[in-house]
Amino acid sequence: MGNLLAVDAGGTSTRAVVLTREGECLGFGVGGAGNPISSGTEHASREVVTAVSAALDRAGTHQGIDAAVLAMAGSRTYVSTEWITSALIRVGVEGPVELESDLLATFCSGAWEPDGYAIVAGTGAAAIRVHDGRLEVASDGLGWLLGDAGSGFWLGRRVVRAVAAELDARGQHTALTPLLLGTLGIASEAEITEDGRPESLRQLLDAVYSLRPIELATFAPLVFAVGDDVVARSITLDARSALKTTLGAVASADVHGPVVCGGGVLSALGLDSEGVPGVTDVRSVADGTAGAAVLALRYGGVTVDEDVFARVDATLRALRAEGVR
Amino acid sequence: MGNLLAVDAGGTSTRAVVLTREGECLGFGVGGAGNPISSGTEHASREVVTAVSAALDRAGTHQGIDAAVLAMAGSRTYVSTEWITSALIRVGVEGPVELESDLLATFCSGAWEPDGYAIVAGTGAAAIRVHDGRLEVASDGLGWLLGDAGSGFWLGRRVVRAVAAELDARGQHTALTPLLLGTLGIASEAEITEDGRPESLRQLLDAVYSLRPIELATFAPLVFAVGDDVVARSITLDARSALKTTLGAVASADVHGPVVCGGGVLSALGLDSEGVPGVTDVRSVADGTAGAAVLALRYGGVTVDEDVFARVDATLRALRAEGVR
Repeated sequence: MGNLLAVDAGGTSTRAVVLTREGECLGFGVGGAGNPISSGTEHASREVVTAVSAALDRAGTHQGIDAAVLAMAGSRTYVSTEWITSALIRVGVEGPVELESDLLATFCSGAWEPDGYAIVAGTGAAAIRVHDGRLEVASDGLGWLLGDAGSGFWLGRRVVRAVAAELDARGQHTALTPLLLGTLGIASEAEITEDGRPESLRQLLDAVYSLRPIELATFAPLVFAVGDDVVARSITLDARSALKTTLGAVASADVHGPVVCGGGVLSALGLDSEGVPGVTDVRSVADGTAGAAVLALRYGGVTVDEDVFARVDATLRALRAEGVR
Repeated sequence: MGNLLAVDAGGTSTRAVVLTREGECLGFGVGGAGNPISSGTEHASREVVTAVSAALDRAGTHQGIDAAVLAMAGSRTYVSTEWITSALIRVGVEGPVELESDLLATFCSGAWEPDGYAIVAGTGAAAIRVHDGRLEVASDGLGWLLGDAGSGFWLGRRVVRAVAAELDARGQHTALTPLLLGTLGIASEAEITEDGRPESLRQLLDAVYSLRPIELATFAPLVFAVGDDVVARSITLDARSALKTTLGAVASADVHGPVVCGGGVLSALGLDSEGVPGVTDVRSVADGTAGAAVLALRYGGVTVDEDVFARVDATLRALRAEGVR
């Protein structure tokens, strides 16, 4: 029997791992943005191949790949795999590629158990319930305009609106104002210009409207950097509350298991799961790489128990610690 | 001495009026979107000329135009007038065109007094304080991403997010859901699809993300059409409160005068000005046309007192009632 290939294809970076059917990770590699929906199939396939080639090189084995899983956002709506199978053939990986949910991969990065929950807050935010190893129901992940409550975009939007409101005399004083203006290189100018607004507000408008909306997520870290501030505290409390609601929407007293947390924003906020039914413990993971490996094992017919999971986790950590990037 | 020309150049439609120095409106005409910032100078100048030509035709006088005022959003940041002066020459209007704030024109549509306030909530939302006939300070009007609290966009965004949250099991039940889905021609499908979400939510995502963000303002009327609904009531209460805050940001106990209200959203919500300092009474206007005429008179050196104002208002109403569109 051959080896397995797992890919965690994200909107910013992509990670690939080659592993044995015993769960021993042999090679690890990274690439750039690998989601075909956000980056286009040409760019995404190139970056996935970069990651996979590096992982195969590190593995240094001539054993073929039996089964491949690629975890990505939108795996259930974007079901075509032609974009990646044809590219992978060129690096010696033949046969079908199974697409899986990035949220399910996050869950499996932190849990070998068949039941539980995953919640992620990075640029976006979403939660899922996992039952019998499958994604059963999802909540949020609806994008910046319709949802993503408590996400990086959501926080960044609240930050810029709070600062604009203070400069505008509508909102209360906040230490976020000098922090955001400083980040954007805008001098604090209280003088009212001819249009009836302070100069610094005019410059803030110019700076923010020159961004794509989703780029407001880059201001999310300010809310954690600002220190003790009543406006920032209200924003982070609202975000924690929104994420608890999102988890609550998928939680069920009938499905018991761990909650696996992912994403930089959730890591900074900390999850509030108090009183949410079904939750047995809270775990955190860096990304969905180990979970994609678990899904590849299952796809290849291997039962992933606690021991196999521990082997995947330990051998993957060792490879990543090598600094093989 | 010749006549005067006033133009209220809006993002959706444009109105022009030709009037005598006594404040008698002789001709009125309309055109399409006339704001050079949102529509581009070529389109805007064509629509302004359409409105002006119709007004000149209706006036039927060969008397020249002495002074022209064009009221528009962004008049203080977009100070060039070349785009419109060259086009107006072709219909016989020579000489400079003075740009004025659309918010000041709204104020002057409802008040001949030198001091007071204007507040507008349509697609956007903003308030100004007027002192000695001049815009002294403004609040909000910061656009859909940074401000416009209580505006049509703001309401529409709240509507679609509330509906998405209900379909997602994160939000409470609201009668807005069948109303919005019906508006978009989406059947109510509670069945969970393979990505863990109900089919109707998937279709809502597709429909909303195919719009430009600002087009969410088209859903604002649903919040008034829905009848008694706790979610809709919470949205409208928040909007009224936000608009009161915006008015409060420009209000001053030292500046006494009327508040002139404009925009369809504010008209539907009703202004809450209770306890706001400086406000003597609340008036409503349809648009800034009469105010642009008042500003043209002042620009032409005419003092606009209560009598002149009443003449502008009455003769303009008569022309508009003719249905000369």
